[in-house]
Amino acid sequence: MLKEKIVIDRSDGRPIHQQIADGVEKLARDGELGAGERLPSIRRLAVLLGVNRNTVAQAYSELERRGSVETRVGSGTYVGGADAAQARERAGGALSAGRARNRPRAGNRGGVEHSLSRRTRSGPDALARLSVTDNVPRIELGGLVPDSDHFPLEDFRVVMNETMAEMGPGILDYGSREGYPPLRAWLANRLREQGASIHEDEIFMLGGSQQGLDLVSKLLFDRGDRIMVESPTYHNAIGVFQLYETELVPVAMDEYGMRPDLLDDELTRRSAKLIYLMPNFQNPTGITMPLARRREVLEVAVRHGIPLLEDHFDADLRYAGEPVASFKALKGHENVLYLGTFSKMLFPGLRLGWLAVPEAFRDPFRKIRTYTDLAPSRLAQVAIHRFCERGLLDEHLERVLAINSGRLQAMLRAMERHFPPDVRWTKPDGGMSLWIELPAQMNAVDLLIEARRAGVNFAPGELFHLDGSGTNSFRLSFTKETEDRIERGIRTIGELIAARMAADAGSRRAESSNILL
Amino acid sequence: MLKEKIVIDRSDGRPIHQQIADGVEKLARDGELGAGERLPSIRRLAVLLGVNRNTVAQAYSELERRGSVETRVGSGTYVGGADAAQARERAGGALSAGRARNRPRAGNRGGVEHSLSRRTRSGPDALARLSVTDNVPRIELGGLVPDSDHFPLEDFRVVMNETMAEMGPGILDYGSREGYPPLRAWLANRLREQGASIHEDEIFMLGGSQQGLDLVSKLLFDRGDRIMVESPTYHNAIGVFQLYETELVPVAMDEYGMRPDLLDDELTRRSAKLIYLMPNFQNPTGITMPLARRREVLEVAVRHGIPLLEDHFDADLRYAGEPVASFKALKGHENVLYLGTFSKMLFPGLRLGWLAVPEAFRDPFRKIRTYTDLAPSRLAQVAIHRFCERGLLDEHLERVLAINSGRLQAMLRAMERHFPPDVRWTKPDGGMSLWIELPAQMNAVDLLIEARRAGVNFAPGELFHLDGSGTNSFRLSFTKETEDRIERGIRTIGELIAARMAADAGSRRAESSNILL
Repeated sequence: MLKEKIVIDRSDGRPIHQQIADGVEKLARDGELGAGERLPSIRRLAVLLGVNRNTVAQAYSELERRGSVETRVGSGTYVGGADAAQARERAGGALSAGRARNRPRAGNRGGVEHSLSRRTRSGPDALARLSVTDNVPRIELGGLVPDSDHFPLEDFRVVMNETMAEMGPGILDYGSREGYPPLRAWLANRLREQGASIHEDEIFMLGGSQQGLDLVSKLLFDRGDRIMVESPTYHNAIGVFQLYETELVPVAMDEYGMRPDLLDDELTRRSAKLIYLMPNFQNPTGITMPLARRREVLEVAVRHGIPLLEDHFDADLRYAGEPVASFKALKGHENVLYLGTFSKMLFPGLRLGWLAVPEAFRDPFRKIRTYTDLAPSRLAQVAIHRFCERGLLDEHLERVLAINSGRLQAMLRAMERHFPPDVRWTKPDGGMSLWIELPAQMNAVDLLIEARRAGVNFAPGELFHLDGSGTNSFRLSFTKETEDRIERGIRTIGELIAARMAADAGSRRAESSNILL
Repeated sequence: MLKEKIVIDRSDGRPIHQQIADGVEKLARDGELGAGERLPSIRRLAVLLGVNRNTVAQAYSELERRGSVETRVGSGTYVGGADAAQARERAGGALSAGRARNRPRAGNRGGVEHSLSRRTRSGPDALARLSVTDNVPRIELGGLVPDSDHFPLEDFRVVMNETMAEMGPGILDYGSREGYPPLRAWLANRLREQGASIHEDEIFMLGGSQQGLDLVSKLLFDRGDRIMVESPTYHNAIGVFQLYETELVPVAMDEYGMRPDLLDDELTRRSAKLIYLMPNFQNPTGITMPLARRREVLEVAVRHGIPLLEDHFDADLRYAGEPVASFKALKGHENVLYLGTFSKMLFPGLRLGWLAVPEAFRDPFRKIRTYTDLAPSRLAQVAIHRFCERGLLDEHLERVLAINSGRLQAMLRAMERHFPPDVRWTKPDGGMSLWIELPAQMNAVDLLIEARRAGVNFAPGELFHLDGSGTNSFRLSFTKETEDRIERGIRTIGELIAARMAADAGSRRAESSNILL
């Protein structure tokens, strides 16, 4: 229906996405699209209308801003926002979906029309779709979070008390913008023991590793710059890079990670400002890049003169196999920015990460770091330093590695047992997540809706793709739940997949018998 | 000399600033400028060459990047960096200042030429000049910092322990991106008691108020946008706004703060994206804007449709007079973003501030806030909330108000006693700083060099100006040092001013007698 009713006229003067948005609103006003009706997926409408997916995404964003549609978590886009639907009920049906666009939005208060920055209008907010919660207790295989039941709170409390007693009130003062020197030295030393060529002067302490992505963006990106990313990649990296109005270029992965031949091809065609990679237990796939591949990728980066950001968010969470050398241990390491965090290997509550910044970038980075939020918490840094120096981090890691390893094995066993044969998954050596591929025609968001109803959460693959692809994939996190609950969660998901497969097969049979008649 | 030797040719093709930079380097190579020689101030060279001050600032930045000059803290720009000078010593003088530009800089490592974002190349880094330290113990009247000797560490330690015991390990987990709800509610309630129209849903907890400036920049600014700021204004606000490649428009102040007539004139000529103001105890001047003036300024803002960012960094530090209503208590408050912090009224070490975001900006702000660094520390927020709810913040404020008030009075008394009659200063009702104006011909940076040698630090006025003006002004902070040390510091500064005045008068006499002869 939409294909015939939404007329795109390239000589119209209005941008295409606006024509689509106006078209949808007109159909809603005319009653051809009912309130609460689900719009086609971005991918599908793009195919129907013969336009780019980004254009449809822009149209849907525009409609959401106007209040004419509502995007529901991992579910889709619906005509008429919740507000509109409620208002319509109150008004006895007098308010049409199309009029819902009159809800308050930027600029219409106090007679002032505010103008936001362009970046606030960039792309759909994948995170908002993921993070809406409905407070239903469920088996959490979605978020990439450690299990707080095992946080070493008592050890940390003792260390925190000692820190305050020893340092006195000055511990609550501003620290330096680079961070607490003994902690920077401790980290540099640990990384050097792992073979990385990192000096403590290179290390800047951050308020978590997400801040590192923001600061590197500030350091390197101008509007329109290109960034090479793994496909799929971390959804919040997509989010922050897009805030800088950059163009993200997805580079396909194979079982060893990003393909250097494709990277080389892309960089030969057009330049880029950064290559962003998670070489260990990649988020979302769990894939670890082997040493030979790392060498190839870095060689391509250096040859094209593009810096590489190595995100080691969960580098220490290895449960099997031998550690692979960091890019910082390889020829060309001067070209690598190295990002780390305490959030995954210890706990996220202190908001502490770090970035190793090669000398070439140091001075401009220092300025950017200061103006962004001055410095990270001194108390948090001094306490964590003491915690690490005491060997408490390593003790904690030992416990967590055993727990996580058991959970990963439990998940793999459960998938073998409960997932139908056509489903494929990765088998990571570490980290927090693995990656599932369903048969091509099966939609993971549809599956997620059913799974949530049945009390299990996971992260749909679309979130980690730039182009609306990955609809038949999803990410499972195995660090938050116990082995028992993982087994139950996987069984539930497996049953739902099997049921959908049976239904699909049924409808195919029905269809083919239809043709035969 | 420089005037004749640096030839500016507008038909040359090279940008003017590059011609100036090349000219300076040529003079250094030819030995006409000796290594270590001080270059004229930006203002002075601009006058000499008949160019804009920004052009000279760009030239000096360019020279610094090339390694040909060195900018020293609050002192000036010198031919040949420290590295170059040392290298020259080692090389027995064989290395000329001009060749010092071969020192490592962005891009020349590993054969890779890196390209930074435009914003990293913006303007001189005022902060770097201010914050370089030489570890000489001195009377600190420079930085705007509370006195850590009076931080309520023991109360905080107790509260922190209770928080951890009560909340369990989950306290170390991620919090929500908006912040800890009870703390947001507590803050909203406190602000409402002060008359502000702020709902808890509007409040986002931040990692300090500097982060608020960064987030508001992301929310509102595109390259080339204009921002109206008080002149003088907070140097780190200048820094972060310039990172977004904006144009800052200084609006002159009188004794009541920013002049609404000038603001109106500016906004009538060309639009802007934001008006940035510190209405209470402004940094650096200490001026508080009276209610009538607030109404006038907000009326202008609303009439032109420009949002106003009200920075209340030290709003609770009032030692005299009655509180003045916040912009959030006035007609047009929907147009106001309100920024606060615990750093000045309590302590800065936890990095906690907040921003009240009116509904019109809420959704885009939420996205930006998440992608920037996910969320502030949960532990810090829960502990501070408990601290505040127990009344410990108010107890602490009572102590600090008495101490700071005594220190402000001590500083005012000392200035009356030790400053020559031609020196003028503000008399704030609160906050942390006051503002000194020397006779017009006297340079505060020159004075600062002498003051530091004599063991006293302050903040030169140029830092707080956009155009290199304010050279005869400086900021004194009265919150960090005891009354005794304030008296000694002011006496030292007073003696130095008097000595310079005598020397100036002497040279004027010498000069006039010269004419008479």
